[in-house]
Amino acid sequence: MYSFKNDYSEGAHPRILNALIASNNEQVDGYGEDIFTQRAVKLLKQKIGGNIEIYLLAGGTQTNLTAISAFLRPYEAAIAVTSGHIVTHETGAIEATGHKIITIEGVDGKLTPDLIQPVLETHQDEHMVKPKLVYISNSTEVGSIYNKGEIEQLSRFCKENNLFLFMDGARLGSALCSAENDLIFSDLRTLVDAFYIGGTKNGALIGEALVICHDSLKEDFRYHMKQKGALLAKGRLLGIQFLELFRDNLYFELAKHANQMAGLLRGEISKAGLEFLTHSPTNQLFPILPNRVVNELQQNYAFYIWEKVDNDNSAIRIVTSWATKEEAVLAFIKDMIKALDKCK
Amino acid sequence: MYSFKNDYSEGAHPRILNALIASNNEQVDGYGEDIFTQRAVKLLKQKIGGNIEIYLLAGGTQTNLTAISAFLRPYEAAIAVTSGHIVTHETGAIEATGHKIITIEGVDGKLTPDLIQPVLETHQDEHMVKPKLVYISNSTEVGSIYNKGEIEQLSRFCKENNLFLFMDGARLGSALCSAENDLIFSDLRTLVDAFYIGGTKNGALIGEALVICHDSLKEDFRYHMKQKGALLAKGRLLGIQFLELFRDNLYFELAKHANQMAGLLRGEISKAGLEFLTHSPTNQLFPILPNRVVNELQQNYAFYIWEKVDNDNSAIRIVTSWATKEEAVLAFIKDMIKALDKCK
Amino acid sequence: MYSFKNDYSEGAHPRILNALIASNNEQVDGYGEDIFTQRAVKLLKQKIGGNIEIYLLAGGTQTNLTAISAFLRPYEAAIAVTSGHIVTHETGAIEATGHKIITIEGVDGKLTPDLIQPVLETHQDEHMVKPKLVYISNSTEVGSIYNKGEIEQLSRFCKENNLFLFMDGARLGSALCSAENDLIFSDLRTLVDAFYIGGTKNGALIGEALVICHDSLKEDFRYHMKQKGALLAKGRLLGIQFLELFRDNLYFELAKHANQMAGLLRGEISKAGLEFLTHSPTNQLFPILPNRVVNELQQNYAFYIWEKVDNDNSAIRIVTSWATKEEAVLAFIKDMIKALDKCK
Amino acid sequence: MYSFKNDYSEGAHPRILNALIASNNEQVDGYGEDIFTQRAVKLLKQKIGGNIEIYLLAGGTQTNLTAISAFLRPYEAAIAVTSGHIVTHETGAIEATGHKIITIEGVDGKLTPDLIQPVLETHQDEHMVKPKLVYISNSTEVGSIYNKGEIEQLSRFCKENNLFLFMDGARLGSALCSAENDLIFSDLRTLVDAFYIGGTKNGALIGEALVICHDSLKEDFRYHMKQKGALLAKGRLLGIQFLELFRDNLYFELAKHANQMAGLLRGEISKAGLEFLTHSPTNQLFPILPNRVVNELQQNYAFYIWEKVDNDNSAIRIVTSWATKEEAVLAFIKDMIKALDKCK
Repeated sequence: MYSFKNDYSEGAHPRILNALIASNNEQVDGYGEDIFTQRAVKLLKQKIGGNIEIYLLAGGTQTNLTAISAFLRPYEAAIAVTSGHIVTHETGAIEATGHKIITIEGVDGKLTPDLIQPVLETHQDEHMVKPKLVYISNSTEVGSIYNKGEIEQLSRFCKENNLFLFMDGARLGSALCSAENDLIFSDLRTLVDAFYIGGTKNGALIGEALVICHDSLKEDFRYHMKQKGALLAKGRLLGIQFLELFRDNLYFELAKHANQMAGLLRGEISKAGLEFLTHSPTNQLFPILPNRVVNELQQNYAFYIWEKVDNDNSAIRIVTSWATKEEAVLAFIKDMIKALDKCK
Repeated sequence: MYSFKNDYSEGAHPRILNALIASNNEQVDGYGEDIFTQRAVKLLKQKIGGNIEIYLLAGGTQTNLTAISAFLRPYEAAIAVTSGHIVTHETGAIEATGHKIITIEGVDGKLTPDLIQPVLETHQDEHMVKPKLVYISNSTEVGSIYNKGEIEQLSRFCKENNLFLFMDGARLGSALCSAENDLIFSDLRTLVDAFYIGGTKNGALIGEALVICHDSLKEDFRYHMKQKGALLAKGRLLGIQFLELFRDNLYFELAKHANQMAGLLRGEISKAGLEFLTHSPTNQLFPILPNRVVNELQQNYAFYIWEKVDNDNSAIRIVTSWATKEEAVLAFIKDMIKALDKCK
Repeated sequence: MYSFKNDYSEGAHPRILNALIASNNEQVDGYGEDIFTQRAVKLLKQKIGGNIEIYLLAGGTQTNLTAISAFLRPYEAAIAVTSGHIVTHETGAIEATGHKIITIEGVDGKLTPDLIQPVLETHQDEHMVKPKLVYISNSTEVGSIYNKGEIEQLSRFCKENNLFLFMDGARLGSALCSAENDLIFSDLRTLVDAFYIGGTKNGALIGEALVICHDSLKEDFRYHMKQKGALLAKGRLLGIQFLELFRDNLYFELAKHANQMAGLLRGEISKAGLEFLTHSPTNQLFPILPNRVVNELQQNYAFYIWEKVDNDNSAIRIVTSWATKEEAVLAFIKDMIKALDKCK
Repeated sequence: MYSFKNDYSEGAHPRILNALIASNNEQVDGYGEDIFTQRAVKLLKQKIGGNIEIYLLAGGTQTNLTAISAFLRPYEAAIAVTSGHIVTHETGAIEATGHKIITIEGVDGKLTPDLIQPVLETHQDEHMVKPKLVYISNSTEVGSIYNKGEIEQLSRFCKENNLFLFMDGARLGSALCSAENDLIFSDLRTLVDAFYIGGTKNGALIGEALVICHDSLKEDFRYHMKQKGALLAKGRLLGIQFLELFRDNLYFELAKHANQMAGLLRGEISKAGLEFLTHSPTNQLFPILPNRVVNELQQNYAFYIWEKVDNDNSAIRIVTSWATKEEAVLAFIKDMIKALDKCK
């Protein structure tokens, strides 16, 4: 049984484990004040540039809830697509901090100014929440990415309307390394007000690096982290990993590998005449397969059945990662083709 | 410079790193549904016994806030000593989930039924919060421990008064391995309603194992974890560590080592005629030193100055851990005696 | 200028003011423990029957947020139609207490089991909130009502699925007195788990009477009220009003008058060949008028423009109340017909 | 049985009821946008002066929780005396909005810079909440008042330390009309950052007028009110009352009457050789009586037994109000003296 269920099925990239071992006996301060975290932050600042602040947190939900609740006043709300991770898969974590999420039926998992505008028009007085933060994911929950033009439009729109633009980058690596991407890492510091660089889904054991770009969002952020339980005593665990991921290009190489494996699958699935539920140039694919093929493949491969498309077909989710083995991909393709033939 | 600042200055015990490496390529499910977590939970259940549930979380503040907010209804409050960790060093994390902490000036960092009784008497109607959970730490924030009789008294009192008894076990290892301890690990399941087994401060990279004993506290706990950002995608990271710590006696051996190192220090400090701020039979010591000795020692050792005792003397905090080296302890003692001589 | 903007434009029914005067010098206990509140509660219990509890609160948003946050555990969510008052016009008050509202595009402002079922199917694990309470309004925000069969269906569905059914009765009087209504006041105690009887919009100065039917929701409710600032020091103000509204049939007579005035308008507007945005048999009407007629009417009447229907027509909202004067209604009708003629 | 239990035992001053009747048929806008509220706010602004904002809320707990949660960021805390109303008698309402209250054992129910300073010194980093708002009551919960010099000291200290100074004025009338008071109403606008003028305990049915002096606290306050359920649909109820209380000197005349009645009691109780638990120059007195006298008086008078002083004596609380009748006071005194004689 080989798993394509997600990009966090394995442990960490070996270089990360090695870095943990190499640094293990060094005595350092706790709670993110260690030398490794300091170096990782410095390194990331150099790569991203500008007057930014960086904090390392353990996971995506923790980062979303800590950041969004820190950025909003009590009556302010976030705006997100209905498929947004904070909307669907975080057990109401944002609402638990007191904030409504206003949802919009996006296009291809994405938001545009045109989609947001009506929300602003209908939220005009104190009987409603005040929309204040636009939450987007890149790549999105359905594998799509924002190109530079799209982000620029959103960014301009948010600035004009006094909205913060926040990018969930749990899968930022895959997005930035996509063949269709034209966004540069350092573009983000001027285009969004805060974003994070997902480590957990790209080779780390745990860890997301939150980058705060907008000055007004920086104040006292470590207080928010501590209050939400997001300040690890052994903050070194996060620092060491991000240091290793970014001291050369490891982070992007891992994402590229995941994308290549997805590319292999995408190409062969297309060749086999199958369609996809969404346009995904990243490491999550949503091919539509006959149910009988799905059943057949489930004998040897683990993946999620995403959506019933019609009585005979379902979209499945296949996720590749830094750890995905090419032979597993090739075997999957072979088995899929065999199953398609058999089910004709 | 050698650090006695805390018990989370180094990485993890080598066996834990080895376990991470050995398991690294194994594909497992996410969010704590992996085989390692399952095995760790099963193992701990065997050791503790009884009808308990176990959940693995990343750190102490996270565990405290997730558990306490899950256990209380909105108008219910926790009771704690004024030196309690949730009172002093968690940035209002419990209050941020909506709950007041009623504080009591404890004795030696500990609570007794007699100290709690007046709180119950003054909280009798709906104009005040309803006290519902007694928070204790073992070992406490000042290094003291609860003996079995003390816990039994508290336990009985809490049952009689419809209060939950919750034990913060961030340093449970050191407490249970203290020479003065007469409490057995498995006693806890009947004496307290929930407790946790601290990993971070006893050799793990991160991780606390929350044990829920009282049936009424078990329902839907994973929902609470997810909502608070406490469900790690790579839950394996926690499972693997607790599996390694408890598959033999590693957890307790590490605690014993920390206590032995503390014992060495305690003995020599006493012999030198110095006193301690608190009675600590565990891995945190609070000796009172002349300020000039403190200054001298700070040249080569890192530790916290805990409290000004008088114009000439201060209590410092020295913490030992699984990683503390005996030669460092001996060197510290030697340097301390030298400094004491010099400062006479 | 005569206002049809809402049903809280005037003060209170004269009998209520008289009751306040008559009781003014009587000394009573505070915080709802006064004799008037006790009598009002007793009276309402007699009228509704069954083993219920009743609490008097100041307003609708306060009642919704106090009740819903009391009824749900932190990870549990409410379900409501997108037009629901808690969704649209309470500034995220429910989310501010930590709970997500799952919204459903209703039919005619109402929910049915068929609409709720898919929500239950997609909320199955701890990565999502747990739907636990169905919020409905009667009459709804668009003037429609639930008939007995509809409530029975919802009630059965909720019981089968372990959901609480909560009815916002800010305009319960108008609903129960509607010509189309077949629901009896006392039916509610077995059909819903909690509901409230709106006073503010039916002749009181302020006040909503929350009726808790389901045993598990009753515990310690006054603690919740106090914590949310909903326990008035002079609780007598609420008690006296509800006592007066229910000691005979005043509450229903006032609602009937509001409905009669709405009926007059509805009939004449229909006769004039105009249509309505929603089917409302209660005191809120949403007729669709040519914009020029709207402009004309705005010279002498105040009302909300609810929705642009097309370039030439808008739906307006006309609300009648216990205080609406028949001559004002007749004048409005006359002016409307004149304006329609003129605008042809 | 005559009640001295509190200052909200009766209804409203007759002039307030008359004002409600006189305005009853006037149609006005809802939610505090009515002409009465506007006039009341304008009038209060003239009396207080300066660039202030004023909002009318229903009660004390509601005002405290709405204001304090609006003024603080999530990790910021309030400071209060242990006897402060928000600490003891609001069911954790402040904590329920997410904020810790740091308590200080005050002197005579009051805070001073010297008492606050150590709190600032021990709250220095992100492991603790950040103290940000000093909550005081005037008059205090034990009847004492702040004189001008004391407030000036606190005000200066707060400004120097970047703290907001917030005054709970539930009994502000009695404080400002005390014979020992040297504070002028309009002084408050420069000395505190926000305060409220209590109506409920000084002749109104309900109502507190919150005055926001500090610019940074003003933004979007109505959003906070609506979200907390504090925006009454019939906001006129509050506006009419404050208009009547302040269109001449009614508010202060009522407070003076309460103080005179307290003065009568204070004088005679002193003359009888009894002592008081606290120094109260306002409408709450805490005389210490032999228990047998207390029992005797309870036959005909209602009051709270505040504290057991020793085995034979108790402090009781006697509260006078705008409605307290002189003959009742005289009768109480007579009965007390009789009982004292009898119990000798």
